[in-house]
Amino acid sequence: MFSVEEYKIRMNKTKQKMLEYGMEVLVLSNPSNMCYLTGYDAWSFYVHQVVIVFVDEEEPLWIGRGMDARGAELTTWMSKPNILYYPDDYVQSTIKHPMDFVAAELEYRGKGSRKIGIEMDTFYYTAKSHERLEVGMPEAELKDAGGLVNWVRAYKSEAEISYMRNAAKIVENAMQAAYDKVGVGVRENEVAAAISHAQIYGSDVFGGDYTSMVPMIPTGKYTASPHLNWTDKKYREGDALTIEIAGCYKRYHVPMARTVCIGQIPDYVREAGKVITDGIQETLAIMKPGITAEEVNSAWSRAIARHGYEKNSRIGYSIGMSYPPDWGEHTVSFREGDRTILEPNMTFHLMPGLWFDEFGVAITESVLVTDTGIEKFTSFDQQIYEKPVV
Amino acid sequence: MFSVEEYKIRMNKTKQKMLEYGMEVLVLSNPSNMCYLTGYDAWSFYVHQVVIVFVDEEEPLWIGRGMDARGAELTTWMSKPNILYYPDDYVQSTIKHPMDFVAAELEYRGKGSRKIGIEMDTFYYTAKSHERLEVGMPEAELKDAGGLVNWVRAYKSEAEISYMRNAAKIVENAMQAAYDKVGVGVRENEVAAAISHAQIYGSDVFGGDYTSMVPMIPTGKYTASPHLNWTDKKYREGDALTIEIAGCYKRYHVPMARTVCIGQIPDYVREAGKVITDGIQETLAIMKPGITAEEVNSAWSRAIARHGYEKNSRIGYSIGMSYPPDWGEHTVSFREGDRTILEPNMTFHLMPGLWFDEFGVAITESVLVTDTGIEKFTSFDQQIYEKPVV
Repeated sequence: MFSVEEYKIRMNKTKQKMLEYGMEVLVLSNPSNMCYLTGYDAWSFYVHQVVIVFVDEEEPLWIGRGMDARGAELTTWMSKPNILYYPDDYVQSTIKHPMDFVAAELEYRGKGSRKIGIEMDTFYYTAKSHERLEVGMPEAELKDAGGLVNWVRAYKSEAEISYMRNAAKIVENAMQAAYDKVGVGVRENEVAAAISHAQIYGSDVFGGDYTSMVPMIPTGKYTASPHLNWTDKKYREGDALTIEIAGCYKRYHVPMARTVCIGQIPDYVREAGKVITDGIQETLAIMKPGITAEEVNSAWSRAIARHGYEKNSRIGYSIGMSYPPDWGEHTVSFREGDRTILEPNMTFHLMPGLWFDEFGVAITESVLVTDTGIEKFTSFDQQIYEKPVV
Repeated sequence: MFSVEEYKIRMNKTKQKMLEYGMEVLVLSNPSNMCYLTGYDAWSFYVHQVVIVFVDEEEPLWIGRGMDARGAELTTWMSKPNILYYPDDYVQSTIKHPMDFVAAELEYRGKGSRKIGIEMDTFYYTAKSHERLEVGMPEAELKDAGGLVNWVRAYKSEAEISYMRNAAKIVENAMQAAYDKVGVGVRENEVAAAISHAQIYGSDVFGGDYTSMVPMIPTGKYTASPHLNWTDKKYREGDALTIEIAGCYKRYHVPMARTVCIGQIPDYVREAGKVITDGIQETLAIMKPGITAEEVNSAWSRAIARHGYEKNSRIGYSIGMSYPPDWGEHTVSFREGDRTILEPNMTFHLMPGLWFDEFGVAITESVLVTDTGIEKFTSFDQQIYEKPVV
């Protein structure tokens, strides 16, 4: 997907961090980190698989299921001898575990008593995976390398930014598809279907990838529960809904949320929308290299406090490459206590919202930090959309 | 989603198994198991969340993120005091972990020194989750309850089977949508978009849910790497592709795979297709209560061995409710060594295929075990589909 040179730069940055953290071997289970370093991209993370980086070897190792090894040969920059696989009776067995195979391979290569980084809190590195590595390499010193590669990923290359620009076009198309489809008598799932079609269709020039989260389109009182999925209920006049979706191009995401009223927008909703769009403008205005993540959060808090509002969840996070079930990078969060310093080529989803008893308003922007400030990835109208009732 | 009576039956079966395994408390992280026992259904499994069953209490506990607690109130049969949440600064933090909160709550309730089942190898129970529970409850005896609820789920109720019948209609519609869309000059992602739209649209009577895996539609030599995702390349005359998809209704899946040739089907492909469809017929004919999972595998092996073929990965698995990234139930596998005895109301995806150097043929059936044999969920034509070149 990227040039071999780019992968080698990524590998070198990873090795630099390994030395910083005191690690000679790094066992990666996070599909985003695996893909970031090797190019391996497949829906195979439902079985155990790893990419292993050695601080003193040029190429990493890929170890996965037999039927996926050929995919690793086809999609990575790695040479065939570095692509290994475990037999199929290791798949979802209560007797054999793929990490037994991984540990044995590391022992065989004389790496079993090294300082080995593992990703303690990543989705697909289970408690059992860890147990099997500990049992299989009793001399190893296993250390948490949770965010190691994630932090390398936080700073995007020009090639990555160009992928995100494609993702931005896709999310604009998908939001427009939702606006076009939603209306009185339409079922919620039909809006989700239209969004999904637009996401995967992409544009006439490039195709879309699947997004790491499905469309989240709660209506009415359900907007206060933003992760409930669609139903097959029909929309009625007066319904308000939030639409949180992303565009995805070759695993790079650009998320966006907007709010829709079916029929006339009530005054108090319109006012809430204005508080948010003003707050976004004020917040984006202070974002630039040197500002910390918690200062971004403070700017937002100040802006809405003037109108008597407060928000107690984080208002944004780092974005880029990702696999289900999340499109966040799990590094930076815009919240109190996060002292990360913004730097050029970081990318974020600024995700503010206001929540009432009967519904919520969410309006968000994905942004790139430039040398002097930020640049929005999309130019989609922020206003609450009033869908005419015909 | 289901009647409270049905949830209570599920709870009782779970408690029976807990006693069998010697467990007083069961901490569930698998979203399918959480939903199965409580009805909780949301795309919130990208943060840590649990359902906790106490062998001596009627209702379980739900613990998750604050913004998801309201969703738990709306979608479960549980009473509000049993729905707890951790503060938002526990989300993706390197300092605070949601399992610290869970352990403290169990300690507070006097359960901290009990025999506690945890799901060691489930996707969202990370090594860190386990570490935090161990640190937070030093007196507890933590025991692996990996497949406990999964095995309860293996036997379906009539209500669950009716959900799967809806899923079956959806997968037939989605496969037809793929057949209609595929063709010379069409991009792979456009076929994926058509499938996804059909999956979520469902039928005019009921809406579709998202599937736990995205459409897998490898073409040509990529069919030997079944989990690689679509590209935006255009199909050409002579391309052959396998389409592996599911229909999903309220999290219940019915998967199906078929094979398509664009233009005339080569003779050797047609012959491979016949070997598979004959083999399926022979295998389905022996499936009935009392037969073991490995006998199903043997029947398939015998059938294709007569034509000189062998397959070295499992040829099927248990299906039902599931969440990304897998639609298998992680219990029964049709392979050598699996001694599970088939019983009425078990449901399986029989997943055979043959793989050649330049492409593969996959034709599959989802089935319900009845009192006397099996019943196919779908009646979609098994033959390799020849898409006319216009």
